[in-house]
Amino acid sequence: MHRINAQLAFLTEADKLKSILRGTTLCDGSRRENTGEHSWHIALYAMVMAEHATQPVDINRVIQMLLIHDLVEIDAGDNPIHGDHDPAEMEAIEKAAADRIFGLLPADQAGSFRALWDEFEAATSDDAIFAKSIDRVQPVISNLETDGGTWPEYNVTAAQLQSRVGVKVQRGAPAAVW
Amino acid sequence: MHRINAQLAFLTEADKLKSILRGTTLCDGSRRENTGEHSWHIALYAMVMAEHATQPVDINRVIQMLLIHDLVEIDAGDNPIHGDHDPAEMEAIEKAAADRIFGLLPADQAGSFRALWDEFEAATSDDAIFAKSIDRVQPVISNLETDGGTWPEYNVTAAQLQSRVGVKVQRGAPAAVW
Repeated sequence: MHRINAQLAFLTEADKLKSILRGTTLCDGSRRENTGEHSWHIALYAMVMAEHATQPVDINRVIQMLLIHDLVEIDAGDNPIHGDHDPAEMEAIEKAAADRIFGLLPADQAGSFRALWDEFEAATSDDAIFAKSIDRVQPVISNLETDGGTWPEYNVTAAQLQSRVGVKVQRGAPAAVW
Repeated sequence: MHRINAQLAFLTEADKLKSILRGTTLCDGSRRENTGEHSWHIALYAMVMAEHATQPVDINRVIQMLLIHDLVEIDAGDNPIHGDHDPAEMEAIEKAAADRIFGLLPADQAGSFRALWDEFEAATSDDAIFAKSIDRVQPVISNLETDGGTWPEYNVTAAQLQSRVGVKVQRGAPAAVW
């Protein structure tokens, strides 16, 4: 039973992602989105948008990547792409979070989940490039649905939107670029 | 562009699932869980728990099934398993919701998503039986984490828990039965 206990400990820890609030709101503007529901929404985005990938992707790997990609936020918090933080420091914090959280799983699963997360972070494989594109598109749609949403709050300019979002989307899913 | 517009209309409609509240709370008891974040959590459950399926399953089909299985709640609302509702009436309402919501997608995707949802509802394929097991286990864990959670509110007895939950879990993932 040790194995299933470790798996349940991980899944109960994952529940905390539902309490991490993001920089974007729901499409109706009623409240901030949390990272748990965001992770569901982008997995659904991937499922629907698979055909728009620039390179052939294994959509099931992309979906699994998106389901786990933000778990580190349980320790590291959400860092809005237009926010102000030190990337090197953030990377160290997120790696420590990945060690702790994936480490709750049985060793074989800890290894495979961590490898998938590392691949997403590195953003060099076709699957990871497409996953990153999807992760960038969904908040833009949410902000567009709410007349700019939280962009004014972060003083987001069109140039910034292009450099931090547009370039990454263009790499993996150019049909989605506005 | 008609195709991508239909896909984005579906994905924006899906956002409403984040505002449907369920009968269970988060594991820390702080608030009701919504169906969007629940859908993420059970997809993650499936990814972690795949090895406990009674019959061999295609875990990627199970995950896709779980990502879309509750979208009908946007129109039909959440109906707690221990709540009081007419199953035939509820089935008609959910089928109409599936017609409308999956119907927002381009025809080919509307067809494949609907077929996956129908398969989940029928609960006869090995993939659907395992998906249903996972859908039943996660709220039990949440209620156990919160000392019974919302069970008292719904006057849930041990016998009811066994007949409405235990039997279904036993079919697909017996290792998870307490």
